Amino acid sequence: MTGMGSKQDALDAFRKLLGPKGYSDDPDVLSPWLTDWRGRYTGRAAAMLSPANSAEVSALVKIAAAHKIALVPQGGNSGMVAGATPDETGDAVLLSMRRMDQIIGFNEGERTICCEAGVILQNLHDVAASRGLRFPLTLGGKGSATIGGLISTNAGGTQVLRHGTMRALVNGIEAVLPDGSIYDGLSPLKKDNRGYDLKHLMIGAEGTLGIVTAANLQLVPALIDRCVIWAGVESPQAAHQLLLFMQSKLREQLEGFEILPRRALTAVLKHIDGTRPPLTGNHSWHVLMEIVQDDPAADAPGDIAAEIMAQALQQNLIEDAACSVNETQAEAFWKIRDSVAEAERAEGPALQHDISVPVADMARFITDESPQIEAAFPGTQIVAFGHLGDGNIHFHVKAPKDADPKNWYENNMAAISAAVYDRVTSYKGSISAEHGIGQLKVRELARLADPARLLTLRAIKKAMDPDGIMNPGKLVPLA
Amino acid sequence: MTGMGSKQDALDAFRKLLGPKGYSDDPDVLSPWLTDWRGRYTGRAAAMLSPANSAEVSALVKIAAAHKIALVPQGGNSGMVAGATPDETGDAVLLSMRRMDQIIGFNEGERTICCEAGVILQNLHDVAASRGLRFPLTLGGKGSATIGGLISTNAGGTQVLRHGTMRALVNGIEAVLPDGSIYDGLSPLKKDNRGYDLKHLMIGAEGTLGIVTAANLQLVPALIDRCVIWAGVESPQAAHQLLLFMQSKLREQLEGFEILPRRALTAVLKHIDGTRPPLTGNHSWHVLMEIVQDDPAADAPGDIAAEIMAQALQQNLIEDAACSVNETQAEAFWKIRDSVAEAERAEGPALQHDISVPVADMARFITDESPQIEAAFPGTQIVAFGHLGDGNIHFHVKAPKDADPKNWYENNMAAISAAVYDRVTSYKGSISAEHGIGQLKVRELARLADPARLLTLRAIKKAMDPDGIMNPGKLVPLA
Repeated sequence: MTGMGSKQDALDAFRKLLGPKGYSDDPDVLSPWLTDWRGRYTGRAAAMLSPANSAEVSALVKIAAAHKIALVPQGGNSGMVAGATPDETGDAVLLSMRRMDQIIGFNEGERTICCEAGVILQNLHDVAASRGLRFPLTLGGKGSATIGGLISTNAGGTQVLRHGTMRALVNGIEAVLPDGSIYDGLSPLKKDNRGYDLKHLMIGAEGTLGIVTAANLQLVPALIDRCVIWAGVESPQAAHQLLLFMQSKLREQLEGFEILPRRALTAVLKHIDGTRPPLTGNHSWHVLMEIVQDDPAADAPGDIAAEIMAQALQQNLIEDAACSVNETQAEAFWKIRDSVAEAERAEGPALQHDISVPVADMARFITDESPQIEAAFPGTQIVAFGHLGDGNIHFHVKAPKDADPKNWYENNMAAISAAVYDRVTSYKGSISAEHGIGQLKVRELARLADPARLLTLRAIKKAMDPDGIMNPGKLVPLA
Repeated sequence: MTGMGSKQDALDAFRKLLGPKGYSDDPDVLSPWLTDWRGRYTGRAAAMLSPANSAEVSALVKIAAAHKIALVPQGGNSGMVAGATPDETGDAVLLSMRRMDQIIGFNEGERTICCEAGVILQNLHDVAASRGLRFPLTLGGKGSATIGGLISTNAGGTQVLRHGTMRALVNGIEAVLPDGSIYDGLSPLKKDNRGYDLKHLMIGAEGTLGIVTAANLQLVPALIDRCVIWAGVESPQAAHQLLLFMQSKLREQLEGFEILPRRALTAVLKHIDGTRPPLTGNHSWHVLMEIVQDDPAADAPGDIAAEIMAQALQQNLIEDAACSVNETQAEAFWKIRDSVAEAERAEGPALQHDISVPVADMARFITDESPQIEAAFPGTQIVAFGHLGDGNIHFHVKAPKDADPKNWYENNMAAISAAVYDRVTSYKGSISAEHGIGQLKVRELARLADPARLLTLRAIKKAMDPDGIMNPGKLVPLA
């Protein structure tokens, strides 16, 4: 209880404000939203609020501020670091943005779209496609992830090489700040120097500084054609040389550059129905590249791919390559890449790390650090795969084959992750490239972050959310 | 005096730390740096500090923090809003970054360069060119403006249409925070989701949150060829239609899109030696477009320009056009554009406004609002010119011909600027597109900013710089 009234008073006020469509404390309704996507964190909540518009978000935040009630914003609840899961006290309320799923506006000339935060990524893709355009950011959770969640986690995915992360695609936002005021920054200004950039501050803030309620997003022309290349290479170093070669030959048309080790391909072929080896030989490392065409004046991706791969072979940059000749084959190549996580799960549990270092250093990180981790934790196996073109890989550490995984992980998890993150930090890399910090990494961030960075994160959080009602316990390691 | 010691104690500590090369209180040495570029503000300073490296910046900020001495950071002192000019109390010290002018590193594969904050833009251009690359941001003050100043003001210029403002070209920064700690964010990570983005927070902060000491910057391939087109059009609306047409035909190859009214061209031809009319006819509005080639595989800019202008003529998008056939002619077209400010000065004083609205709305702003301003202030003339492709123009309001300009401006300046900024705000635009706020616009920002934005600016400033020692009186309208 506070001087401003009890928790029950707040809940009554929420119920009155939002009505039956916007308020629930039914345990059956809440239950699916209390556990994180990966199933590792489960919390409790006093209620779930589902506002219908920004005005309702503003009003409910004012109630929460007055009663010092913690709010846990949620989009699709498909984040990877438990950033949208409440703690176990049951004092917080869930703030679901899923009802706010309207497209607000569209500007054909500027290729921009304005939408509410609860729009699901797949729906945005569909709307853009219906206008002959494309929203280029895409990722596995596109059927559930919402625009607000993607903004609040600065989501990445497989097309970042060309189009950047979510940050690069957001022209403007509307957000409700921790005191309930509405910040209207939706206007898509290409130049605006009126002080600290609040848009960039809110992007990636994981709901700890306020609630993103709407956004103006950049669309790009629809794809006319694409070619997906699968190449076998000797090592991550060779893959990086290939990346530089491709970038010297191609500019905007190179949209994806992913690597996976033989081990990952073997697991996919073993566990995922309908997958076949793209190449006949046995290669240590594999690269998937996507060449696209969205400009009628540009050369056809298939022609480009054939010519460039011939040159790459001649220069010994690759051991072999196959270029997709139709969409079925392109999809088949991507399916292998996209199935690595699932296949690895079928092989046995793996401790996952979403890490980045400067692009130029990632090959060295993989080849130098993987054996050291395996040596330090005997019996483990590293599977490092993903977005080499962004300097971002998913670094999986698999338990020894003969170990009971549950016990083994309980005993070794913290030490292994610490060892990985120590090494990433020594490369001046990031312990969270694209997933965020959430609850999962908040202790490691506290341990490893530059003190100046920590100081600033805490100062900003405290200044903007002095009562700590915005998604407490996430992102910012409080002292 | 404070409990921590007197101002003289601080000055003694600065002198001891920095030595004769890094410390001066000689009035003759300080004098050129106490007046802003446009000559409208003159302040006083107790000394000028010129550190040689980041460690010295860190140490001097710690001294300033301990003694609560205000620091006014300065690069080339060529800003447009008096953001680097101290106040009149003489209590502040100037912090010149000009000695920190070293290139730190270069990565050919990634096309990145790392340099200290005091590197002058022209020097960076030269270093990039010597490596066969280009730093694309450029502006009139390139011979004096420093990288640190360009970052702290998120500078724009004429190539923003394709390459973005400074923000888009900064991969990482190092900065000294108000407590003297060094934030090392130089590592050029393409993906990094470890909380609030401190790089974006410091960019455009005008030195009010700390001192940018170094940066990792993105370079692009050198130009192979370019073609500058001069076109006559009927109206700003026609210019915007032409912009959309050009963007539908060209992607990366369109690098600049500028407009000027007949009035501005006439002034240039009258006052600037060696300029000639690019077209024979008499057009109400003029457009300068730059088409570039930096990819050997791309079509030649001259061929593209000729073909596209033929189409534009046929579709009545333009009245006439001339395409440069060599560099001399390209330079001559740009010289006209770049001389507008000087020619307008020769015509008589003008009150200048650096404003932006959404690109799609700028033509309407010019045609609807200009006559209203002229009607509200009889005898004034509007000259609106600049970066239409960015939705950013320089909106000059010229005094009546028969008025004594000095008196007239003293009596009308505040009212005219308020009228312009009111209209910009009603278009959800920005009262500072590319120049920043500094001292010049801080009152207007206080008057017109969204309360939620003001609240946040103040909260962040107070949290990060509680004693207000970092460039006080600039950017953030304190309550």
